[in-house]
Amino acid sequence: MPQVAIVMGSKSDWPTMAQAAKMLDTLGVSYHAQVVSAHRTPALLTEFSETAADKGYQVIIGGAGGAAHLPGMIAAHTHLPVFGVPVRSSQLSGVDSLYSIVQMPKGVAVGTLAIGEAGAANAGLLAAQVVALQDKTVRDAIIQFRQQQTADVLAQPPLELPE
Amino acid sequence: MPQVAIVMGSKSDWPTMAQAAKMLDTLGVSYHAQVVSAHRTPALLTEFSETAADKGYQVIIGGAGGAAHLPGMIAAHTHLPVFGVPVRSSQLSGVDSLYSIVQMPKGVAVGTLAIGEAGAANAGLLAAQVVALQDKTVRDAIIQFRQQQTADVLAQPPLELPE
Amino acid sequence: MPQVAIVMGSKSDWPTMAQAAKMLDTLGVSYHAQVVSAHRTPALLTEFSETAADKGYQVIIGGAGGAAHLPGMIAAHTHLPVFGVPVRSSQLSGVDSLYSIVQMPKGVAVGTLAIGEAGAANAGLLAAQVVALQDKTVRDAIIQFRQQQTADVLAQPPLELPE
Amino acid sequence: MPQVAIVMGSKSDWPTMAQAAKMLDTLGVSYHAQVVSAHRTPALLTEFSETAADKGYQVIIGGAGGAAHLPGMIAAHTHLPVFGVPVRSSQLSGVDSLYSIVQMPKGVAVGTLAIGEAGAANAGLLAAQVVALQDKTVRDAIIQFRQQQTADVLAQPPLELPE
Amino acid sequence: MPQVAIVMGSKSDWPTMAQAAKMLDTLGVSYHAQVVSAHRTPALLTEFSETAADKGYQVIIGGAGGAAHLPGMIAAHTHLPVFGVPVRSSQLSGVDSLYSIVQMPKGVAVGTLAIGEAGAANAGLLAAQVVALQDKTVRDAIIQFRQQQTADVLAQPPLELPE
Amino acid sequence: MPQVAIVMGSKSDWPTMAQAAKMLDTLGVSYHAQVVSAHRTPALLTEFSETAADKGYQVIIGGAGGAAHLPGMIAAHTHLPVFGVPVRSSQLSGVDSLYSIVQMPKGVAVGTLAIGEAGAANAGLLAAQVVALQDKTVRDAIIQFRQQQTADVLAQPPLELPE
Amino acid sequence: MPQVAIVMGSKSDWPTMAQAAKMLDTLGVSYHAQVVSAHRTPALLTEFSETAADKGYQVIIGGAGGAAHLPGMIAAHTHLPVFGVPVRSSQLSGVDSLYSIVQMPKGVAVGTLAIGEAGAANAGLLAAQVVALQDKTVRDAIIQFRQQQTADVLAQPPLELPE
Amino acid sequence: MPQVAIVMGSKSDWPTMAQAAKMLDTLGVSYHAQVVSAHRTPALLTEFSETAADKGYQVIIGGAGGAAHLPGMIAAHTHLPVFGVPVRSSQLSGVDSLYSIVQMPKGVAVGTLAIGEAGAANAGLLAAQVVALQDKTVRDAIIQFRQQQTADVLAQPPLELPE
Repeated sequence: MPQVAIVMGSKSDWPTMAQAAKMLDTLGVSYHAQVVSAHRTPALLTEFSETAADKGYQVIIGGAGGAAHLPGMIAAHTHLPVFGVPVRSSQLSGVDSLYSIVQMPKGVAVGTLAIGEAGAANAGLLAAQVVALQDKTVRDAIIQFRQQQTADVLAQPPLELPE
Repeated sequence: MPQVAIVMGSKSDWPTMAQAAKMLDTLGVSYHAQVVSAHRTPALLTEFSETAADKGYQVIIGGAGGAAHLPGMIAAHTHLPVFGVPVRSSQLSGVDSLYSIVQMPKGVAVGTLAIGEAGAANAGLLAAQVVALQDKTVRDAIIQFRQQQTADVLAQPPLELPE
Repeated sequence: MPQVAIVMGSKSDWPTMAQAAKMLDTLGVSYHAQVVSAHRTPALLTEFSETAADKGYQVIIGGAGGAAHLPGMIAAHTHLPVFGVPVRSSQLSGVDSLYSIVQMPKGVAVGTLAIGEAGAANAGLLAAQVVALQDKTVRDAIIQFRQQQTADVLAQPPLELPE
Repeated sequence: MPQVAIVMGSKSDWPTMAQAAKMLDTLGVSYHAQVVSAHRTPALLTEFSETAADKGYQVIIGGAGGAAHLPGMIAAHTHLPVFGVPVRSSQLSGVDSLYSIVQMPKGVAVGTLAIGEAGAANAGLLAAQVVALQDKTVRDAIIQFRQQQTADVLAQPPLELPE
Repeated sequence: MPQVAIVMGSKSDWPTMAQAAKMLDTLGVSYHAQVVSAHRTPALLTEFSETAADKGYQVIIGGAGGAAHLPGMIAAHTHLPVFGVPVRSSQLSGVDSLYSIVQMPKGVAVGTLAIGEAGAANAGLLAAQVVALQDKTVRDAIIQFRQQQTADVLAQPPLELPE
Repeated sequence: MPQVAIVMGSKSDWPTMAQAAKMLDTLGVSYHAQVVSAHRTPALLTEFSETAADKGYQVIIGGAGGAAHLPGMIAAHTHLPVFGVPVRSSQLSGVDSLYSIVQMPKGVAVGTLAIGEAGAANAGLLAAQVVALQDKTVRDAIIQFRQQQTADVLAQPPLELPE
Repeated sequence: MPQVAIVMGSKSDWPTMAQAAKMLDTLGVSYHAQVVSAHRTPALLTEFSETAADKGYQVIIGGAGGAAHLPGMIAAHTHLPVFGVPVRSSQLSGVDSLYSIVQMPKGVAVGTLAIGEAGAANAGLLAAQVVALQDKTVRDAIIQFRQQQTADVLAQPPLELPE
Repeated sequence: MPQVAIVMGSKSDWPTMAQAAKMLDTLGVSYHAQVVSAHRTPALLTEFSETAADKGYQVIIGGAGGAAHLPGMIAAHTHLPVFGVPVRSSQLSGVDSLYSIVQMPKGVAVGTLAIGEAGAANAGLLAAQVVALQDKTVRDAIIQFRQQQTADVLAQPPLELPE
């Protein structure tokens, strides 16, 4: 049974949200990815969210753009931790997505990541950090990933002035 | 059976949303007002929205602040016209509410009014304008309201410089 | 006689506003589309707005960009419901258009949709939702459109990681 | 016949717009001040704007808040120079007013001043600067006002640290 | 040993961050709260973050305002999940805090909550949701809290128009 | 002697500011265009501004981007009316330019136009409107320009749906 | 001869800018504070800036609000380092001040601090850090100030939940 | 030993930050450029910052984008003056970078330059202006650079209307 669910409001969000999937792959965390639209498939959203805990997911990642209601509405139906990714919108650069996801009222929480691909990758990383609390293999993979990341910076060749 | 439903995400939205109720009273349109929280009572939201047309409502007005998902989620469950009122939020002055309500994706629409009390009053007015398409009494009340409004401006005494 | 009027401030708004026309076509609602500039043809704006109800229009959709005065000025001259579409501006991404349309003062209302093409399509949808209150054929078309939209999401093939 | 007209969208704008009047008084420029609402008295707006040149006004100052259509709509009806003052709005601090006034399309111009009282005073000053092109008394008054303003800064006592 | 650490950049953040503590109390999660300034006590920040996992914390909540570097810098030193709370700043309403916390680069993640007290309370809730993955008592408390929250909305008396 | 001066902070502003020149050409107003940098040639700015009235200019148009100090600093040195054009900046889309130009303190005024080319064209138009107060030929040209503009809208062929 | 000059656009900026003076006092750096208005006393600005190096100042701190041209215009006249403080404006919270100061074009630089009192204090600190490069007494005072600041955080009593 | 250190959060910042290096080259100031990531190499950041003064650097320039913590965290570890460059971010145009760098709390200062390449070049210029306080050769180079810059503007050929 996958440890993490990745849902997104539209198939057009997948190029962004695939960064979450790739990060989970890198860290050895299993996941299921699916389109669930808060506005076009609200019944699916309810069914998905209410059964997520029983299906064994530990974390849900939700990505959406514009009036991005998906992550907050998932959080309204589950006690699992929900992380939200504001997908860059064509008009307002994702500020609308960010505000729609992060400004949740007291009592229903969404942990929000950065706008766009970096945020999606970090949603995968943060989900893995939660999974790692109970899974030593994932924890070791995260520590290894972070050490490699540090080593990559340190190993960079000296900077040379562009022409 | 009331012609318009006014719903809001929290009782704290009522001082704002009461302006919609007052406008509907002024124009002779019947309404029902209720708290329905997208995040704290999602099942109620679904039940309310799916039965609204059968109950005889012609228009639904939804008001909410912050990550204001209520109007859009109502619209996801009904074919009735939905008008949204961004309630002024304490941190971002209602810009978060406005973006969360207005930036709906193609296929599910919310007609959005101004932030705060003026927007709430205008949601009542716009709902009445829709009702008036089939209700001559309401239409006459709107025309009368608008004429009075014009007359009030024209009847103002000359401006005098403040001390 | 057309059920809906679509007006816009400039011919350059037509690629955006044509999405409203296409949505109305999809839903079987008749419409008339025309350029009416608040600033360059104010007399036409007045004449158009004041006669719109008598011509039999039920809803007016107005689209404009920048200092977007068209929807609000139409609303000042008619008791018909007016829906506004903020056209994306070249400098401020349509935030100026959005604020100019949505922040109407108490007493004259414009139901505002999202910035750009999604908003234009939704203005058509919302107008149809109003027309549908009196027109069972349109109502059935909306319900069918919404069901198809849901079915399209549900029928999507599984997501596959991009290379 | 007054040299300058000051119009505003609502009597609630008068405490702000009175700063324009006071500045014109200071500089010896005659003016007429009046409420003209773009949305509640559109016919008055048209009549006022179309006859302004014949009445002998040289400049029109328009102040409004929120979806501030007044200055731009006046400009649409006259060849006189129009200056706009964004009145501070209760929700968006006047950014909505500013964008609604300043972002006019090519072909109809509004010279926009700062948000609020400083902008209103400067609208009076700028109007006087235009009048001064043909009126040596006003020009001398402006030069005197500006010199006094400079002298006031230079005459300030040394700054002392607050307790 | 406490399950959650709450750190904040300044004692002036405590009235906001105490909402996280109260939520954790409500849900039966133990915590330790402390001031750790990224800019004034960077060595303490490093020491605190590097030893947090070994001390047995499962989640770290960091709150800060303005150029809010605390949550991100903690995340740079630990593999524990870090949640960030943008404290409302006196000048920019917390938008600066929000951007400084949420826009983390790929590879180091902070799950960000809403600006101010609601966000702080939700940071406590989200931390409890993570703890609950391994702690049935906390999970039951969250489910109970959420059910009570729903019941409180449903039990509200009918809305009455304000005078 | 030219009636209007057009100055700009950098030669890179000329493609924008040339729209002002073209509009003045269209309306038969003479002008002089020149680069004057507030930051790189402050002495030239002072000399230019202080002598502008004596040289016979009636209006000065200043265009600049970013921290756009040029129009305000010109206004500090002359009693002629000054109109400012916020040139679109590469980073902040001209919002920085707009705020830097429009938010002048009480006592020194700049009439500000829209960001970018439309604003530049309108600065030319507004300058011509000021010149026209004393110059019937220019006034007639403006009236003609405005009538043609209206006629162009009215003469547009019917809109046709794009493929 | 004072080591640092503090200038500000208006006496109303002094309560903010006095924080710079207090910080310099704390660190043993001598200073001169004065009102110099870019718009109302441009000749004084030129004279002050051109003679600042010869008078022995090592750093100039400029504070201003709104269209805050002072720091940039000082920098245009001197080769001394200039630090700018965006004073909080009444309408736009100092965002206008910030953009007007920080977005200088290539070739004339202003090192900009935070909006308001914290920024003013830090302008004093940063000026002292520059002075300290040649003045061991000031350097020791800065190190002592920073150590005390760290000690103050570490010495705070445990946090107690507010009632 | 180099007089100035240029550090940046990622190699992708180098095309921007190279403008600082080029300016320092132009002005005859020696520098060392290096990638130091606040989030990926926090230990390196601490070590670099704490030893910078002893290594003989007089000024540190830090450039970063998004949640740009680098300049502020460097400033937390050194008494040298630190100048920050907000690198343009892909999502929010560098506003997030700007706020993250400039809004430092009282007690730890970063002098912030404009977003992007102009800001990087000016960071080099401002650093040189600080170095010049003790180095007459650099001071002469700055004066020469500034004079040349002025001369380049004055030598521009007359503007010609584009086709």
